[in-house]
Amino acid sequence: MSRPAAPLVLHADRLLPADPGVLEIARRLYAAVRELPIISPHGHVDPAVLLHDTPFSDPAALFVTPDHYVTRLLHASGVQLAELGVGQGRLDPSAAREAWRLLCSHWHVFRGTPVRYWLESELAEIFGITVRPSAATADQIYDQIADRLTRAEFRPRALFEQFRIQVLATTDDPTDDLTVHRALADDPTWSGRVVPTFRPDRYLEVGSPTWQEDVARLGSVAGTDTTGFAGWVEAMESRRAHFRAHGAVSSDHSHEDVRTDPLEPADAERIYREAVAGRAAPRDAVALRRHMLLEMARMATEDGLTMTLHPGVRRGHHTPTLRTFGPDTGHDIPLRGDFTDPLRPLLERFGTHPNLKLVLFTLDETVFSRELAPLAGFYPSVYVGAPWWFLDAPEAVRRWRSAVTESAGFTRTSGFIDDTRAFCSIPARHDMARRLDSGYLARLVAERRLDEDEALDAAVDLVTTQPSEVFGL
Amino acid sequence: MSRPAAPLVLHADRLLPADPGVLEIARRLYAAVRELPIISPHGHVDPAVLLHDTPFSDPAALFVTPDHYVTRLLHASGVQLAELGVGQGRLDPSAAREAWRLLCSHWHVFRGTPVRYWLESELAEIFGITVRPSAATADQIYDQIADRLTRAEFRPRALFEQFRIQVLATTDDPTDDLTVHRALADDPTWSGRVVPTFRPDRYLEVGSPTWQEDVARLGSVAGTDTTGFAGWVEAMESRRAHFRAHGAVSSDHSHEDVRTDPLEPADAERIYREAVAGRAAPRDAVALRRHMLLEMARMATEDGLTMTLHPGVRRGHHTPTLRTFGPDTGHDIPLRGDFTDPLRPLLERFGTHPNLKLVLFTLDETVFSRELAPLAGFYPSVYVGAPWWFLDAPEAVRRWRSAVTESAGFTRTSGFIDDTRAFCSIPARHDMARRLDSGYLARLVAERRLDEDEALDAAVDLVTTQPSEVFGL
Amino acid sequence: MSRPAAPLVLHADRLLPADPGVLEIARRLYAAVRELPIISPHGHVDPAVLLHDTPFSDPAALFVTPDHYVTRLLHASGVQLAELGVGQGRLDPSAAREAWRLLCSHWHVFRGTPVRYWLESELAEIFGITVRPSAATADQIYDQIADRLTRAEFRPRALFEQFRIQVLATTDDPTDDLTVHRALADDPTWSGRVVPTFRPDRYLEVGSPTWQEDVARLGSVAGTDTTGFAGWVEAMESRRAHFRAHGAVSSDHSHEDVRTDPLEPADAERIYREAVAGRAAPRDAVALRRHMLLEMARMATEDGLTMTLHPGVRRGHHTPTLRTFGPDTGHDIPLRGDFTDPLRPLLERFGTHPNLKLVLFTLDETVFSRELAPLAGFYPSVYVGAPWWFLDAPEAVRRWRSAVTESAGFTRTSGFIDDTRAFCSIPARHDMARRLDSGYLARLVAERRLDEDEALDAAVDLVTTQPSEVFGL
Repeated sequence: MSRPAAPLVLHADRLLPADPGVLEIARRLYAAVRELPIISPHGHVDPAVLLHDTPFSDPAALFVTPDHYVTRLLHASGVQLAELGVGQGRLDPSAAREAWRLLCSHWHVFRGTPVRYWLESELAEIFGITVRPSAATADQIYDQIADRLTRAEFRPRALFEQFRIQVLATTDDPTDDLTVHRALADDPTWSGRVVPTFRPDRYLEVGSPTWQEDVARLGSVAGTDTTGFAGWVEAMESRRAHFRAHGAVSSDHSHEDVRTDPLEPADAERIYREAVAGRAAPRDAVALRRHMLLEMARMATEDGLTMTLHPGVRRGHHTPTLRTFGPDTGHDIPLRGDFTDPLRPLLERFGTHPNLKLVLFTLDETVFSRELAPLAGFYPSVYVGAPWWFLDAPEAVRRWRSAVTESAGFTRTSGFIDDTRAFCSIPARHDMARRLDSGYLARLVAERRLDEDEALDAAVDLVTTQPSEVFGL
Repeated sequence: MSRPAAPLVLHADRLLPADPGVLEIARRLYAAVRELPIISPHGHVDPAVLLHDTPFSDPAALFVTPDHYVTRLLHASGVQLAELGVGQGRLDPSAAREAWRLLCSHWHVFRGTPVRYWLESELAEIFGITVRPSAATADQIYDQIADRLTRAEFRPRALFEQFRIQVLATTDDPTDDLTVHRALADDPTWSGRVVPTFRPDRYLEVGSPTWQEDVARLGSVAGTDTTGFAGWVEAMESRRAHFRAHGAVSSDHSHEDVRTDPLEPADAERIYREAVAGRAAPRDAVALRRHMLLEMARMATEDGLTMTLHPGVRRGHHTPTLRTFGPDTGHDIPLRGDFTDPLRPLLERFGTHPNLKLVLFTLDETVFSRELAPLAGFYPSVYVGAPWWFLDAPEAVRRWRSAVTESAGFTRTSGFIDDTRAFCSIPARHDMARRLDSGYLARLVAERRLDEDEALDAAVDLVTTQPSEVFGL
Repeated sequence: MSRPAAPLVLHADRLLPADPGVLEIARRLYAAVRELPIISPHGHVDPAVLLHDTPFSDPAALFVTPDHYVTRLLHASGVQLAELGVGQGRLDPSAAREAWRLLCSHWHVFRGTPVRYWLESELAEIFGITVRPSAATADQIYDQIADRLTRAEFRPRALFEQFRIQVLATTDDPTDDLTVHRALADDPTWSGRVVPTFRPDRYLEVGSPTWQEDVARLGSVAGTDTTGFAGWVEAMESRRAHFRAHGAVSSDHSHEDVRTDPLEPADAERIYREAVAGRAAPRDAVALRRHMLLEMARMATEDGLTMTLHPGVRRGHHTPTLRTFGPDTGHDIPLRGDFTDPLRPLLERFGTHPNLKLVLFTLDETVFSRELAPLAGFYPSVYVGAPWWFLDAPEAVRRWRSAVTESAGFTRTSGFIDDTRAFCSIPARHDMARRLDSGYLARLVAERRLDEDEALDAAVDLVTTQPSEVFGL
């Protein structure tokens, strides 16, 4: 006789502090925020999924193949990315099932990770799964999810509503015409708010192999002559205006560093033209990119788009995997990085500008207490971004609040950012943040550092006022 | 009917651990240190305040305007520094009241910060305030404090005594004649111990625009010819002797880094003379500053002044604010920094010298476990300085003890340093440190890592033996 | 009448979490691993001690003189290394007793350190000491230990068995003929497993003063011509094969950084020959060392020796002490260091090679969450090494699990590594790790992040499966 499968049960107090006294306070705080709508001002969901309300195809496509948080640890555990269907487009049913089985049979490698926490939440709360994934239970779970995915209440729009998403931001290329966003906004049967985000990285990466064609395309879409730097600036301004007209509230930027040293106009022009001609020196290309980032901040002071910075990642660390499977396949690895000096030129110019909002994210925890909190504790434009990517995890979030709050308080932080392409993980991620903030605040109350009425107020602010203010929603 | 104002109540167990078992131990440890006198071997109180025993003028001058810990987060929250009276000298009564109102109406932005903790302690314990500051209660609190400030028992000398301050160190320029300290020491009606601290930074910052006139003035005060490096050394030695004769126990140093590479005597002389002539290369100026810091250590081995190093801050990060409001107005931002290699030349020469005491502070937490504790765990001259500035806060202090103790124990740390210019915050700051150390030690006891009698001994040492030994008091 | 000596008592729950609810879970987890055999895949015990089963000479030789963890903090506290017998070979009885007294009279300086924790465990558990060390109890304890050391059950082989050591790795020079290991393996009266570790650092440190004679000796032992780089490679391969034939499972590498940039073959050859001739430029010497480290990884993919990297220490920080007392005398100080870019050339080539196992250690905690966990969470060859040296301590271990687990889980970590030359500390060190992992897992259970059956499984894996898999045992 085989052992009965272990149950999958979500405990009501999960992630709240273990100490009974602190737990009681945390429960009260969490109860006040648990059901509040979700504001998701930065993420990577494809808006077409909501426009067309296409049913999700299968459990692997929903939970495994496109999610590099999931595939990376499976890969580390000896599973080939090819076995998980990475980079292969839509999988046939048997390949999808096989990918799912690989996840379930490696369930133990995710112990103690937020990936496991999110997946368990999604399986239990959205799909009603009651057994722990394993090699033995993989098929049964697969079938249950697959069955639900055929039902109307599991289509994207129904889930969007069930998840109580108040605003969802996507991430979009400046040359995107945003017809999908337009169509969604114009759809009389749809009342959700889905806004685009202006993500111009490729047009600033002057040294990248595709930059020349990228800026040519940008000029063509914007109707400006991007063979000179003035035309590039004009094109950017024009596309930002287009995005704003379609509801965008922010631009997002991810480069190796956040240096923002200005160039003399003549130097910027010279380097730009050399780059268009394919002969900019690498060092000049980097200098121009930094100048361009400063230009983006200048534009932000004029059009009011919140500017989010996500620096410091070595993208595509393993070139053979990049070549075979493409980008975003689990081998982007963080780098050490600073903000104090690199951002100074930008902050000297615009740091006290009433129109600028600048949200600083990092994967290098050392800057939380040393640089980000001190900056956000002085500059009215600067907010400390929520823990991102590898740091969007319970222990890291606690370290972050501990490192940031004492210099920046709660009001200089961004509110939670899910930054996810895994649509079904959105509620679990926001819920995790609410539980953790409730726990942090409860400890302040338990240690008599904050009265409970104020902790309650702060907890609610963090999921309502803060993201609304930071992203001008 | 308006809501009654929320009360302001200090709980006896504030900052102690929440777990009931650990709390009980912590209470016992804290009880043993709570009432012990305060040793404050480094800070920024103006000794003239004690000499003249001038009443504090108003609540804004006492709690808001001069304290960049307070004004910075208000500024980040959209308040102009001008509205807070920064850089304006003494405020008229209505401006002072207005500045106070701005603090009270932004009380919530300080949630979870040590600034709030200190202010609450001061308001409740010194001034008997019983309502939580807010826009509604601002005037009432202002009036209550203002009233008390007119009373004899709230004048500086009375508070000094009430605070149980055993030693208070000020921070002074080498050219200061220390007549204020002399007068205070000679005052038969005064029995407190107030000692100067030798702070020679400006005379080492060879590249600064004022350096030439600074060293000229130094020479004139010391009666030596500072047009050559030997004269500079002689002047420094002479002024240190003057400070020692007036009770000084330490010199304090804050430069961008702690490099101490020696120069050949001829190079030092050459660069020094070029600098006096206003034509030292920037790189040479920095090299000379590092050599000068090494010289200060050499002097310390001879005269026994404890040497405290506070490196790694970008001062005046926002130039427009610096120009309008001056230095120390909230936009000094920490930098990454190392000690292992930079301090090596100094430690190779003097690290085992029986006369040297070197206290290392940092705003870069990464060096606590990586460099400071290992250095203090070998060199008999090196002590790890208490968490400083942005890190003088409950969560940071806990991280610091956790990071430092396992390599350096308790006896290689400096004892608490308040480093404050806010006179009334001194008892609250020392009390905070005592509570946190009691909590840390209580956890060691609760986890059976230390017997309670030893924890008690360590707790008492940290506020008596340690600072006395480290600062030769 | 003198006060009775304080007792020395080890509490059964030491190091487990203080919270009663978490403690109960932790006790159950710890009970499951407490008695499991010890796998020690990296350390510095001398195998001759086991071959000859020589009785330990005295308490100072066992606990004080050779252990830089112990002597360093005594030195920081004003004790001269000479008084502790460092660098003096075998001490005479009175000198040994004096060294022991110095440890006991400074017992308080070790409060809160793991050294104290280990020593207490060893004194109580192995030697039955029941009084706390102090100046007053030093002689009595010395006599009790000295007495036991004369008994058969306190000889090395008996202790090896009592400690339940399943595998013990030593650290050995590539030119070592390993006759001691061979003799031990061939001894019919001995059934323990003691394996050598290939530690070739000196042959890669091209810039060191002894390198020329080192590689000459290497060539002579290996029977190859090491005047050219091909001969160096051949010699290394040959010695690795010799080590494998004697049971080695890993090679260990400690250089200033982990850069692994490849050189063109002609450049490698040129630099190598220049170095043999004593005229390689320092920069070239470093470049060749990095290339050589890459070569070691290539060899590892062929012979399967696990590769452990321990970078980032400034060895012999205090030259006067180094000259008088030799290396490993307590003044090696950690440095900041990165892995993401430095290791990339190696990982690009071999990171997904099925034969490579690469364990990354650090003394710079900042890389745990930023680099090591992300790398180990993608590359199947990479494991995060257990906290090492200054970080092998309760608070640091907790920070490490907190920083690493969320990106790398438990299965991408190395299992505990004691890395010790203090034979009697081996059980205390492994026990400490088991207690801390039990506590970490118990908290996950208490916070409803992991079911207890899985926590139990993970706890057992960490002391069985993980080290066995990572070191191919």
